[in-house]
Amino acid sequence: MIHVPKNWYNILADIPFELPPDIPQPVRADRPEAVKPQLPLALVRQSMTRDPLVPIPESVFEKYLSWRPTPLRRARALERHLGTRARIYYKYEGGNASGSHKLCTAMAQAQCYAAAGARRLVTGTGAGQWGTALAVACREFGLACKVYMVAKSFHEKPYRKTIMRLYGAEVVPSPDPRAGRAAGRGEVHAGNIAFAVTEAFEDALTHEGTQLSVGSGEAYAILHSTVVGLEAAEQLGPADQPDIVIGSLGAGSNFGGIALPFAGRKLRGESDVRCVAVEAESCPKLTRGRYCYDYTDGSGVSPLQKMYTLGSRFTTAGGHIGGLRYHACSKIISALHHHGVVEAAAYPQPDIFASGALFARTEGILPAPESAHAVHGAIEAAKRADEAGTAPAILFCLSGHGLFDLASYEEYLNGTMADVPVSEEDIRRSLAELPQLDGQAVR
Amino acid sequence: MIHVPKNWYNILADIPFELPPDIPQPVRADRPEAVKPQLPLALVRQSMTRDPLVPIPESVFEKYLSWRPTPLRRARALERHLGTRARIYYKYEGGNASGSHKLCTAMAQAQCYAAAGARRLVTGTGAGQWGTALAVACREFGLACKVYMVAKSFHEKPYRKTIMRLYGAEVVPSPDPRAGRAAGRGEVHAGNIAFAVTEAFEDALTHEGTQLSVGSGEAYAILHSTVVGLEAAEQLGPADQPDIVIGSLGAGSNFGGIALPFAGRKLRGESDVRCVAVEAESCPKLTRGRYCYDYTDGSGVSPLQKMYTLGSRFTTAGGHIGGLRYHACSKIISALHHHGVVEAAAYPQPDIFASGALFARTEGILPAPESAHAVHGAIEAAKRADEAGTAPAILFCLSGHGLFDLASYEEYLNGTMADVPVSEEDIRRSLAELPQLDGQAVR
Repeated sequence: MIHVPKNWYNILADIPFELPPDIPQPVRADRPEAVKPQLPLALVRQSMTRDPLVPIPESVFEKYLSWRPTPLRRARALERHLGTRARIYYKYEGGNASGSHKLCTAMAQAQCYAAAGARRLVTGTGAGQWGTALAVACREFGLACKVYMVAKSFHEKPYRKTIMRLYGAEVVPSPDPRAGRAAGRGEVHAGNIAFAVTEAFEDALTHEGTQLSVGSGEAYAILHSTVVGLEAAEQLGPADQPDIVIGSLGAGSNFGGIALPFAGRKLRGESDVRCVAVEAESCPKLTRGRYCYDYTDGSGVSPLQKMYTLGSRFTTAGGHIGGLRYHACSKIISALHHHGVVEAAAYPQPDIFASGALFARTEGILPAPESAHAVHGAIEAAKRADEAGTAPAILFCLSGHGLFDLASYEEYLNGTMADVPVSEEDIRRSLAELPQLDGQAVR
Repeated sequence: MIHVPKNWYNILADIPFELPPDIPQPVRADRPEAVKPQLPLALVRQSMTRDPLVPIPESVFEKYLSWRPTPLRRARALERHLGTRARIYYKYEGGNASGSHKLCTAMAQAQCYAAAGARRLVTGTGAGQWGTALAVACREFGLACKVYMVAKSFHEKPYRKTIMRLYGAEVVPSPDPRAGRAAGRGEVHAGNIAFAVTEAFEDALTHEGTQLSVGSGEAYAILHSTVVGLEAAEQLGPADQPDIVIGSLGAGSNFGGIALPFAGRKLRGESDVRCVAVEAESCPKLTRGRYCYDYTDGSGVSPLQKMYTLGSRFTTAGGHIGGLRYHACSKIISALHHHGVVEAAAYPQPDIFASGALFARTEGILPAPESAHAVHGAIEAAKRADEAGTAPAILFCLSGHGLFDLASYEEYLNGTMADVPVSEEDIRRSLAELPQLDGQAVR
């Protein structure tokens, strides 16, 4: 009998170094309201505590029971196809109403905001996994919900909009084609997640009882996602704990959710597990970004956080990377990477989709493009192990299903899926717009 | 610990009446090959035996274990929303690689055909659930697969084509826009399932090593689907066996799969369970069709079977009923209905989708439009029970998920979903084309 955890795991209890502090933005005379406190005290506490275990509120735990524990499976058919000696396990998070792991933090956040008196939550979403999860959670906790969806995804994945509407959310494309002004920047640029969050932030600032909820990156979003890794550890049992743990990296909740409970063991000297964050080659913040202070959204009013970043105005050249299209990596995972506790890898888009299709054919679940990054990472890890003559246990998070992403798989089947490389010049140009203090980038 | 059944349940062992025999078609001089035996002996035996339990071949059972037993859940959130005293249980069959219950018979058929020497299977599919299931099963048993998909669905649900292609199948629209001649009829008409099967049949007749596989209606397809009801009976346990069992009716495998193990108990005098087949108001064969001999496909070469039918050239006026768009009800379930063992109900399309959306909002699974018929039937049964002051246990089959069907739910959300009534004149005109012997319809 596998139990749903009663607590989240907080890696802040185990890290032996200090996290660089956030830098609040000066209050701007033209937008004094833009720095008013937004976060419920419960979420602030969850972000700041050094307790290793943070109790899951009873009402959130009850919601978790409606879809947790999620399955932990061994990918035997995939193993046979690869002819690998590695044991490949996956934790499947796509079986819930929202179709991804995002529901773990969506439920927790909706509960906190509702308890703090909010009547309506707004958010930005990329491919739509987060927006769908928040729509479900808002319905469960009696909140209204509005989702600003990156325009490219809004138009390419119309059914994402439908499912969010079915769950009761209002959904609009970002940037709003009718809007002339965006919060704090005075200019509308092509859609990306940072900008969608900015538009949602603007909405929250100008509507009573409305709060901005964000799906990844923030410490509490990663904390809430650790139920994934905690469950997996119990499901695997003491006999076959993983040698390698792999998660896709957008901003951090996916990778952090599966990996941090294991990274904590490593920090405590209980194992020498390798934790590998797999990012898109077209959005390579950990592998090619800079570790420095940056905005977490595109507004220029959020506090600065020290992160691996490509710059908050970075826009990918295209491709189908969905929720991985975020310019930075959360400060906690960035710090863990900076200190060598977790690793990172980036792979080209056609290879990612080939692995996603192979997984569907062997294991019978079509991975979301985001999740296919972890699938590919696991396959690569198995191949490297076979070359080295080792036989590790590999665990990865299959964070969501790809049934909303079939247009991209159709492109793969037709052989028209392009590689989407990022030039050094692209990165240099984007990093040139990092926030400055006294005329200098903030280190 | 719930077990996957080792046997299928065969209702022929329990029916106290004779089934009207099939009537073979005369061999036509212009198409002598059209009546050559097509069916593997194993499937013939499974269709003819009077044994109550038919052993599931070991290699099929092993495949079943990859996704069975499927969940049996109580719809508590739906019950709360309705304020009903009824206990509503659902058996969820949408969690496998194909997304529906169709995989039960697809695996069994692929095994039989492969064992009989076939190298390639062809079929017709409506909304695509059956085609997807056969694509998965063919891959598992090393067979090539080609799917003729009703043109309307092919164009309205492009992602169904993608998922079938991902599993390795070739998919074409039916009618073939390039073809001038259709088997045995000399005329190409608007797409429907019967015609898609006809095109597949033509393919099988003209290609070496190729056989036609059909997904519903035939006795063996229903037999294979009874694992659904057998598992549900074990999962519910002796304390809470259902008073009412509900399934959607296309041709019969969905309804028969969930209901026949319970109908058998009724025939044996062990219970007085009500079994209710829910059909689309726009394709009302059980509620408004005629019980007489008809073709099972659109070719005019298949043996005639005595069924409730609207005529094999019946075409629905539109709407989103997917796999329920079949002109007749399988001969076994037709006979059970004729003898009063099972009931039937038909509901209008907007009500079906309202219940589907309600189910998604309460239980977190979006039903396929086909499955939404059973959801609506269960909700109606609960309401009638509340009115009557009873508190029955209601079991229905949630046969597949609706993530490929969001365009139709979008129509529902926009309030543009039309009722699709069928006039008496439509039915009369279609029944006028029933097959004739000596100038008379065959009774």
